Amino acid sequence: MNQIISNNLNPHVSVDCVIFGFDGEQLKLLIIERKPKDAVSALPGDLIKDNENLDEAACRVLYELTGLKDIYLKQLQAFGDPDRIKDLADVRWLRDVREEPLTRVITIAYYSLVNLAELAPRPASFAKEVRWELVKKVGKLGFDHNYIVDKALEQLRLNLKYDPLIGFELLPEKFTLRQLQKLYEAVLDQPIDKRNFRKKFLTAKIVVSLDEKEQNVPHKPAQYYRFDRKRYMRIKDRFWF
Amino acid sequence: MNQIISNNLNPHVSVDCVIFGFDGEQLKLLIIERKPKDAVSALPGDLIKDNENLDEAACRVLYELTGLKDIYLKQLQAFGDPDRIKDLADVRWLRDVREEPLTRVITIAYYSLVNLAELAPRPASFAKEVRWELVKKVGKLGFDHNYIVDKALEQLRLNLKYDPLIGFELLPEKFTLRQLQKLYEAVLDQPIDKRNFRKKFLTAKIVVSLDEKEQNVPHKPAQYYRFDRKRYMRIKDRFWF
Repeated sequence: MNQIISNNLNPHVSVDCVIFGFDGEQLKLLIIERKPKDAVSALPGDLIKDNENLDEAACRVLYELTGLKDIYLKQLQAFGDPDRIKDLADVRWLRDVREEPLTRVITIAYYSLVNLAELAPRPASFAKEVRWELVKKVGKLGFDHNYIVDKALEQLRLNLKYDPLIGFELLPEKFTLRQLQKLYEAVLDQPIDKRNFRKKFLTAKIVVSLDEKEQNVPHKPAQYYRFDRKRYMRIKDRFWF
Repeated sequence: MNQIISNNLNPHVSVDCVIFGFDGEQLKLLIIERKPKDAVSALPGDLIKDNENLDEAACRVLYELTGLKDIYLKQLQAFGDPDRIKDLADVRWLRDVREEPLTRVITIAYYSLVNLAELAPRPASFAKEVRWELVKKVGKLGFDHNYIVDKALEQLRLNLKYDPLIGFELLPEKFTLRQLQKLYEAVLDQPIDKRNFRKKFLTAKIVVSLDEKEQNVPHKPAQYYRFDRKRYMRIKDRFWF
């Protein structure tokens, strides 16, 4: 019972962080393996403290378990099924780390899309290991975490379709349209028609061609573009249809 | 202390319902006045029960306080500021109705947009009164309910812009473009240019002109339209821009 956690934790409410990472080609998910005994993978998550608000709790918990900070976490939603903790491995684990292991816990999920290359997570607290796993290959996670990931992915896809800002914040200042398309294909998990895709961005004028091309590439150098944030802010109140 | 609530309530988590009602002209909000003593207005909300999930709790609480049922409630988000219950009137009221009045409560907010004419709310439980109030004229509400309403309104506006379905579900089968515009103007709280507005819907072909006009109206009869749900489902995966 040496893992029991200090007393100012609120045993009724937790936060869980769904961190999607893009590596230029594929979409990955940040998962931890729990200490001490079982090898169950899970989202980085823990109980909130009584003196912090939910956003603060999410940032603290992510930092404590993975060392990551300064990541913009957006609240996804609350998950509160009375049966969300029923798997025996989860129950056993809670018995080891929590003061009130049988208490019903409502969890508030947060999510983010980050540039994987810029981050170096390292395990701490009750995380034995932290790793990026291909979203498509994520296996069984603890608690209701697979369900939470599905919901977060749904939301991420909506965001990218209706608010491309989240994508541009991930790309470098200057990027090729191929890079942009890779991002959309990875998140939406579907091939996208190149011509239509480019036409969309160019017609909406939210990307602007730069007077510069790729250098030292083994293929025909592609044009660089930049995101026109001002134009985007001007048109973003338009209706979708 | 005769109002103390039965024991299977979970004292740590509540739900609050933001019900927006459209009356054909204006956007209103469903609010209750709390029993017994003070005259503080608030959203219909209460603690969850230990055996129900969050969606069920929201439906039950709305029904218990206002008599409304079969309303599609969508989760907005969780609100968990440690200071969300600090107003003295709120603290006094909690002392009268709750077994653990000082417990920190996280609330999960739900919202909906309904056709006001179809509903007849009536107060029950600790609601002394239920009424529709113009959104623009809502005064100070209990707890952090004004903040919750602001967030719900923000989300409702995004929905209507990016997913017009929520609007069409409110209108009758056949409607005039004036009715549709009224709805958008009421929710977005801004005048909309008539020509642009019509062009948008007609170009996207999500409304279809019917071979029928208004009858017995004191002005030039307007054309009736219907929503083309099939076409909408086909195009709704398009990017916004």
